Amino acid sequence: MSPVVNTDELQTFLESVFPKIPSKILDIGPGHLTMEQITKPHDIRPGGTISGPTMMALVDTAMYAVILGHIGIIALAVTTNLNINFLRKPEPGVLKAKANLLKLGKQLAVGEVTITCNNDPRPVAHATCTYSIPPHK
Amino acid sequence: MSPVVNTDELQTFLESVFPKIPSKILDIGPGHLTMEQITKPHDIRPGGTISGPTMMALVDTAMYAVILGHIGIIALAVTTNLNINFLRKPEPGVLKAKANLLKLGKQLAVGEVTITCNNDPRPVAHATCTYSIPPHK
Amino acid sequence: MSPVVNTDELQTFLESVFPKIPSKILDIGPGHLTMEQITKPHDIRPGGTISGPTMMALVDTAMYAVILGHIGIIALAVTTNLNINFLRKPEPGVLKAKANLLKLGKQLAVGEVTITCNNDPRPVAHATCTYSIPPHK
Amino acid sequence: MSPVVNTDELQTFLESVFPKIPSKILDIGPGHLTMEQITKPHDIRPGGTISGPTMMALVDTAMYAVILGHIGIIALAVTTNLNINFLRKPEPGVLKAKANLLKLGKQLAVGEVTITCNNDPRPVAHATCTYSIPPHK
Repeated sequence: MSPVVNTDELQTFLESVFPKIPSKILDIGPGHLTMEQITKPHDIRPGGTISGPTMMALVDTAMYAVILGHIGIIALAVTTNLNINFLRKPEPGVLKAKANLLKLGKQLAVGEVTITCNNDPRPVAHATCTYSIPPHK
Repeated sequence: MSPVVNTDELQTFLESVFPKIPSKILDIGPGHLTMEQITKPHDIRPGGTISGPTMMALVDTAMYAVILGHIGIIALAVTTNLNINFLRKPEPGVLKAKANLLKLGKQLAVGEVTITCNNDPRPVAHATCTYSIPPHK
Repeated sequence: MSPVVNTDELQTFLESVFPKIPSKILDIGPGHLTMEQITKPHDIRPGGTISGPTMMALVDTAMYAVILGHIGIIALAVTTNLNINFLRKPEPGVLKAKANLLKLGKQLAVGEVTITCNNDPRPVAHATCTYSIPPHK
Repeated sequence: MSPVVNTDELQTFLESVFPKIPSKILDIGPGHLTMEQITKPHDIRPGGTISGPTMMALVDTAMYAVILGHIGIIALAVTTNLNINFLRKPEPGVLKAKANLLKLGKQLAVGEVTITCNNDPRPVAHATCTYSIPPHK
C-alpha cells in the first residue's frame, strides 16, 4: 500500500469539497496518514472537554483522506460503519489523528484512527471505520 | 423504565447546555425518546446527501436526552462508545431519531438509535451507544 | 423484504453446513427471523453465566440465517463486522435470538440481533452485524 | 502500564478457569500481550476458512488475559462491548493475537486486538473490546 496522492493535492481536494474543513493533513505514508485540528470554541462542551461529534468528524475525515490518498481522489467513497471508543476527556488545544489502513479491498476499506491531544501520548479516542468503495468505471 | 423529566424540561436543559442545538425532542416514553432535526446547508455533502457527522451528532444527542430523561437532568453522563451503520443515502429534509434504552444500569447505559428521513420508514442509519453514568453524590 | 426460503429448508441447510449447530430456527417473516438455543455445560462460564463467545456465535448464525432466508441459500455471504453489547448476565437455559434486517443491499446486508434468556423480556445482549454478499453469477 | 502477572501464572489461571482453552500466551509486556492458537477441524468453515466465532473467542480471551495481566488475577472482569472487523479469509494453521490496552481505568478497560495468521503480516481480523472492572473490595 503506497500513497498515490501527496499531502498538498489531498488537502486541496478536501478543501474544495469541504470549504470549512477544520483539519489539516500533516503527512501521508504507506498505509497511514496524520491530520491535526485546532479546537475552536464551538467544539467545547460544558466542563471544558471536546465534544464527541468533533472527534467523530475528525475520524471520518482522516479515514476519507487516507483512503483517497491510496486509491486516488477520483473515487467517491462513503462511510458504512464507524465505531468509536472515547477513552479520556481531551482538553481544548490541538487534536492529532493517526489513521492506519487495515484493509484496502476493491469494495471495502477498513482502517483505525487514534486521536491524541496536546502532545499527551495516551489516546483520547480510538475508532475503526469502514468505507464502501464504488466500482471504478 | 419510566421517564422522570418531560419533553419541555428536557429541551430547555439541552438548549441551556448546547445553545445552537439543531434538534428538537418530539416525545419521551418508557425507555424511548424521539427527536427531529431539519437539515441545513452545512449538513449537506457534495452529491446532495446528509453528512455522517450530522447523523452521529444526532445519535449522540438523542442518547444523551433519553438517558437524562430517565435518570434526571442532574447527572453528568459521557459517551464511551458509539457504533453507527450508515444504511442509505439520506436526502436533505427532516431527520427523525428514535432512541431506545437497552440497559439503564448504575454505571452504564446502553441504547440504540434509528434514524429515518422524510417519512421514508426505511432507516438511513442505525447506531448503538454506551454512556458512562457518574456516581450520584 | 419477503423470505424466499422456509424454516425447514433453512434449518436443513444450516445443519448440512454446520453438523453440530446448537441453535434452531423458530420462525422467519418479512425482514426478521427467530432462533433458539439451549445452553450446554461448555457454554457456561465460572459463576454460572453464559459465555460471550456462545452469544456471539448465536448472533452470527442468526444473521446468516436471516440473510440466506431472504436471498436464497445459494449465495456465500461472509461476516465483515460484528458489534455486540453484553447487557445482563444470562443464566443457563434457553437463549432466544431475534434478527432484524436493517438493509439488504446487493453488496452489503446489515441487521441487528437481540438475545433474551428464559422468557425474561429484557435483552441480555444486542448486536449489529454486516455481511458482504458476493456477486451472483 | 506494567504487567503484574507473568505469562506462566496467567496461563495457569486461564487453564483453571477454562479447562479446554485452545490458546496459549506467548508473552506479556507493558500494555500488551500476545497469544497463539492452532486451529482445529471444528474451527474450519466450509470453503476451508476459519470461523468467525473462533476468532471472536480468541479476541475475548486475549483481552481478558491482557487486563488480568495488568490488574492481577483476582478481579472478575466482564466483556461489555466487542466490535470486530473480519478483513481477510484466514487459512487453517496458527492464529496470533496481539492485544494492546488503550485504557485501563478503574471501571472500564478498553483495548484492541489484531489477529494474523500463519506469519502473514496482514491482519485477518481486528477488534476493539471493552471490559467492565468490578470494584475492588
